[in-house]
This record gives sequence, structure tokens and C-alpha cells, in this order.
Amino acid sequence: MDKASHKIQELIDLMAKLPGLGPRSARRAVLHMVKKRDAIMKPLAETIHQVSNTAQECTNCGNISTQEVCNICLSEKRATGEICVVEDVADLWAMERTQIFKGKYHVLGGTLSALDAIGPDQLKIPKLMSRIESESVKEVILALNSTMEGQTTAHYIADQLEIYSIPVTSLAQGVPIGGELDYLDEGTITAALKARVNLN
Amino acid sequence: MDKASHKIQELIDLMAKLPGLGPRSARRAVLHMVKKRDAIMKPLAETIHQVSNTAQECTNCGNISTQEVCNICLSEKRATGEICVVEDVADLWAMERTQIFKGKYHVLGGTLSALDAIGPDQLKIPKLMSRIESESVKEVILALNSTMEGQTTAHYIADQLEIYSIPVTSLAQGVPIGGELDYLDEGTITAALKARVNLN
Repeated sequence: MDKASHKIQELIDLMAKLPGLGPRSARRAVLHMVKKRDAIMKPLAETIHQVSNTAQECTNCGNISTQEVCNICLSEKRATGEICVVEDVADLWAMERTQIFKGKYHVLGGTLSALDAIGPDQLKIPKLMSRIESESVKEVILALNSTMEGQTTAHYIADQLEIYSIPVTSLAQGVPIGGELDYLDEGTITAALKARVNLN
Repeated sequence: MDKASHKIQELIDLMAKLPGLGPRSARRAVLHMVKKRDAIMKPLAETIHQVSNTAQECTNCGNISTQEVCNICLSEKRATGEICVVEDVADLWAMERTQIFKGKYHVLGGTLSALDAIGPDQLKIPKLMSRIESESVKEVILALNSTMEGQTTAHYIADQLEIYSIPVTSLAQGVPIGGELDYLDEGTITAALKARVNLN
């Protein structure tokens, strides 16, 4: 390995910094690139270069975009009355894959954390509140992760939004589709039991 | 997702083509890149670009290098009398990590396969034979994978090299370090039993 040419090693080290890639998978990825030079490696260099020059945070919602304001915020097909609040862009993408939500988003960029000194201002909560006024929002859906941090943040935001007297909802908690009770934790089963629905 | 800017989606699709990365990990990797634009994304674009322009197969041994002949072939510290035959560059790197082998390599680029029309010429076996003559090789070590294809290829090469009357060896088969018998397949245990070593 120490005999691999310096630049190749440098590339492997860079790739290994990406989440989900360790040294071994970084080596495999680089070898694959070199073998598929024209099909993968050259387009990859070019595309990363382009995106690194153009990617920016949407100034309205915090989504990643190659424009100042993202396509979702600009789209006239999306209802302006609903804002779905998510922690991260990855969560926004996850919501979009369902193709069921037709409103707009607000990306917090994390969760409240005293330890990491992340307060309401870092999470663009003031911006969310100004959007509720300027976009005459009728409902805020808190689609935060079902973790301690996510739920703490959700409760904080719900408190802040009380002044607007609009519905603030959160995703339902319960048994995931395909989930087997035997493999679920007690917290999930408890939540599903409390939120049980009438079938008749 | 379909609302992510076109170029970002293109980058995710390209990343997802790398081995070990699926659509989900490609999305995570791209988000991470965008967040670490200066530390990771820009150097990555630049380094992939440089390597894609300079990486080539060593004309002597088949290793990947940024020169016509790789550092290992050029090194005067490496014994010329021993050639270690491996299937792939990844295997060469694995051998190098042990820091125990001080000879030179010959990368086959695969294994014999009638189905994929890979014969001795595609695997640079003639080149191996010419190297044995020109580099006055004293031993050939076959470090091929312990798979059906690897072992078939090893036997074929061993047959071809009989004319040189030099030792042709292969890696020992047995219980891996840290391996527990309970988790090993019968083939490995059988091989380890047959090759048992005397302790007294």
C-alpha cells in the first residue's frame, strides 16, 4: 500500500473520509474508478467540481440547491400553506421519496443541543417563524427523528409556535410497515398501543 | 428526491455506481461532501481529475501506477528473484500491507474463465513467463484467492511453469488468525487438518 503512487493513496484517503466508506471500501471504490475511467472517474471529477462550485443552501428553507432558492420553494405546484420541518436535507429527501407531501419544507440543520451549543438561532427557528407569517402558513408538520434530541426539539418548536394558533402536528409513531412485534422495542409498541386506531 | 437539483442527483447516481455504495450511502456521501466543501469536496474533484489523467497499468507487472513502470518494479530494494502472482491490484495492496514480502509482483487481472472468455493471454500469463526468463526468477508464489476460480488458475499456471524447474508455491490454507472452528466451513478445517504442523 505504501508503494501505491502517492496521488492514488491521497485519493483513497479522501474517499475514506466520506460517511459509510472505510479504508477498505475506499480502496475498492478507487480501483473501480480507475478501471472505469471514462464511464465513472472522469464524469465524477467533473460533476463533483461543478456541484462544489454551485451547491448552496436555499436561503428560504435550508434545502441544498444549485440556485439561491431551491426548486421546491420556487414551485407553484407546491402548497404554500403547509410547512414540513425536518432536521436535515437527507430527511427532506426521504420525505420527497414518499411523493405524498405536497407542501414546502424547512430544514433545521440539526437538533437543539446544549452540549454542542446549538440553540434556536442555529436551527433557523426564527426564520421558520418569519415564514409562518410571510407565507400565511395553515399547518406546521414536525417530521423530526423519533429520537430524544428530535422530540425535544419538536416540543420546543411546538411551544414557540403556540402564538400563531395554527395546527402543529408531528408524524405518527407506531409499528413500521413490515415490522414484527417480536423485533420491536417496548417504546415503539407502547406508542403504537397508546395511538391504537378503531377498525370498525 | 426528484426535486433535488439535477446536477446533485447526477452526482448521487455516479457515486452509487461505486462498489460498496448504494443509493442511500451515495446520498449521505454527497451531503457530507457538500457540507465539507473545502475540506473534502474540492480536493476530491481535483484528485480524481489528476488520477484519472495519470493512472495507468504498470507495463511490467500490471499494478496501478501514475508512471509507466510502477514503484515496486523500479525499486532496487525489492528482490528480483521472487515473483508473487496475484489476481488483482487489491490483492497486491493486501499483500503489501503485511510488509513481509520483499519481492516483486505480477497482477493477472482476473482468473481463467471459459464463460467470460478469459484465457491465458488475457491474464498476462505469457508476460509472466517472459519475466521469469528475463528477471532470472528463483521462485513463483501463487497468492491467488482460495476460490474455485483462483485455485483452477493457480493449477494452470503451475502446469505452465513446470518447464522452468523453479519452485512454484502457493499460500498456505488453514485456520485464519482469530478464527473459531465453530464458525469455519468444513473445507477450511479439512485443509487445516491435512496441513497440520508438528509442535514438538
